[in-house]
Formats: sequence, structure tokens, C-alpha cells
Amino acid sequence: MDGLTEKKKSSKEIFKGRIVHLFVDNVLLPNGQESTREVVKHPGAVAVIAVNKEGKLLLVRQYRYPLDGIIYEIPAGKLEPGENPDDSALRELEEETGCQCERLEKIASFYSSPGFSDELLHVYFTDSLIEGKQHLDQDEFLEVCAIDLNEAIKMVEDHRIYDAKTVYAVQYMQLRENQNKHN
Amino acid sequence: MDGLTEKKKSSKEIFKGRIVHLFVDNVLLPNGQESTREVVKHPGAVAVIAVNKEGKLLLVRQYRYPLDGIIYEIPAGKLEPGENPDDSALRELEEETGCQCERLEKIASFYSSPGFSDELLHVYFTDSLIEGKQHLDQDEFLEVCAIDLNEAIKMVEDHRIYDAKTVYAVQYMQLRENQNKHN
Repeated sequence: MDGLTEKKKSSKEIFKGRIVHLFVDNVLLPNGQESTREVVKHPGAVAVIAVNKEGKLLLVRQYRYPLDGIIYEIPAGKLEPGENPDDSALRELEEETGCQCERLEKIASFYSSPGFSDELLHVYFTDSLIEGKQHLDQDEFLEVCAIDLNEAIKMVEDHRIYDAKTVYAVQYMQLRENQNKHN
Repeated sequence: MDGLTEKKKSSKEIFKGRIVHLFVDNVLLPNGQESTREVVKHPGAVAVIAVNKEGKLLLVRQYRYPLDGIIYEIPAGKLEPGENPDDSALRELEEETGCQCERLEKIASFYSSPGFSDELLHVYFTDSLIEGKQHLDQDEFLEVCAIDLNEAIKMVEDHRIYDAKTVYAVQYMQLRENQNKHN
């Protein structure tokens, strides 16, 4: 034993919905005692940092029910069953913004909230957009906007942007610009 | 109506655990149709970007049950009932790393995964640590390490760091260093 790992003793399915698949498991802790762990299994998701010809970042304005509010996010969505993340990223980009792209680069994969969920987010970058027509899911309503990087930085600073992956995206763009400036 | 907002019609509590509080709601969509939304209510969380006297970033190595793996994260934890995020950050920093600090600056708040959860993460920065003794929760097992920024950047690049808030923290430190260099 490494002194850190927990071992599953039993698992109980609590709920299986369209997104959330909830389990409560009994586990054996490293010290031999028992505890419970609540786990939200999630299919995983993709997000795309998409920069248009004018160098602006595409954001979607979308009502998010859990927050009861409209929030700015980079285009994103969850993986369909059996779907490859690369295909999912192209699909979500096109559905939400109407854009296809010539090149799509995977830049990161990280867990959104590893304390209670296995949601893994794959993040992509593209600056080779080909504009087209938005075609949303039946229960999806959103507006696309193109934001200058300096404005996006301000929007993070004054909390108009407050979505984790979008804050990450703005940082990524800042670092990329710094690197281009000093190379 | 703004053409984006959804309206709650009814709400059903599915599960109330130690962390996860799950509801399935019926909602009215902007187009007048109905749909369901799965919502994981979460108490919110804090995380601390803590830099020691040698300029190294404190990370904790911790087994995360939802991923069945050991992961590097910045010190973090969820809010206790009624707890102020500032107090929670000081508490989690001290519990997990043994460190107190002279100054703690709040640098960001963002939603971890707004598609299905209202978890709001408050992120702090400190470089004024006062070292002490770790004192963990009964069911918490973790190791603290101090990582040089260049090494942390490499760990993000080769996916040894794959936790959202920790990837954010490494980018934050990079941007901070760039700014110090060019000021």
C-alpha cells in the first residue's frame, strides 16, 4: 500500500439520468477504517478555444439552470456515447457557433471537480475557423459573441466571466500572446 | 423574456449526501417546451495557490476515489456549513499543509462545471507562509510537496498534473512571473 489509496468494498447506484450517474460506495481507507464516497459519473466533455480571423475569442452566452443565470463560456458540450473527443469537439464547435475549422489542436485534458466527479474535460484550440450556420440541440438556446482578448481579460477580472474552463481559456490566450510577443 | 432563460416548473430531491445534493427539475424552455434538468447542489469550495520561501508551489498528492487514482492538486476543500470562503481557505491550507500565512489574496471565483452543478470554487494566493504541522480530517490522507514552477509547467504539459484548478494555478503563476519579468 502507498498509504493513500482507498479500496471499494461495495457500490450502490442511486440515480441514472441523462448526464448524472450517481453512486454511493463504501470504501476501506488507508488506515483500515471505513467511509463512504459519493461519486457522480459523467460521460466527459469537450471545450474549444476558437479564435476568429480578427483574433477574437468566440464565447457563447447561455442560461445555465444550476446557477439560474446566463453565463459566458467557450463552446463546449458533453461526449455522446462512444464518441471520440476529437469528433465531439468538432461537432460541438459547429453546433454551437456554426463554425467548422481546418485544424484543431488538443491542448489539455483535466478533471473538473475530482472530489466528487469523474468528469474529464478535453480542451482544444483552433484559429482556422470556417464560418457557417449554427444548429443547436432541441433543448439548447445560446448566443455567440466574439470578444477581443483584452476585453476578455477585463471580463475575468470583473467577474463577468466566471466559468472555470473559460477562465482557463483566457489565461491560455494571454500566455500564447506573451510567447508570440517575446519570440 | 431574453430568449435564453429557463423556468422551474417542479423540483424533485433525489439524494442528499455529505457532499452531493441531487435534484431533478422540470423546466420550461425559452421556446415554451418542457425538459428536465439534473442539478448537483454543492456547498462550494476553496483552493489556495501557496508559494513557499524558495518560490515553490505547494501541491498535495491525494487519492481521489472518483478517478481511482492519485492526483496532484493545490490545497483545497469544500466549505463547511455557514463558513466564510476566506476562513475556509485559511483552514484548508493549515489542515492540508500545516502552513498558516500572513496575507491571503482572493484572486478568482468560478463555477467548476456549470452544466450540471452549482459548485463555486474560490481561489486564493499567498506567498507569506508560516510553516507548521499538518492536521487532516479523519478520512483524509495526503502528502505535501513543493514544486518548482518550471517543473510544474512540465507536469501540466506531460499530464502528470490533470486537475482543473491546479492547471489554472500553474497558468496563474506563469502569467505572474511574466508580468514580474517585464515590469
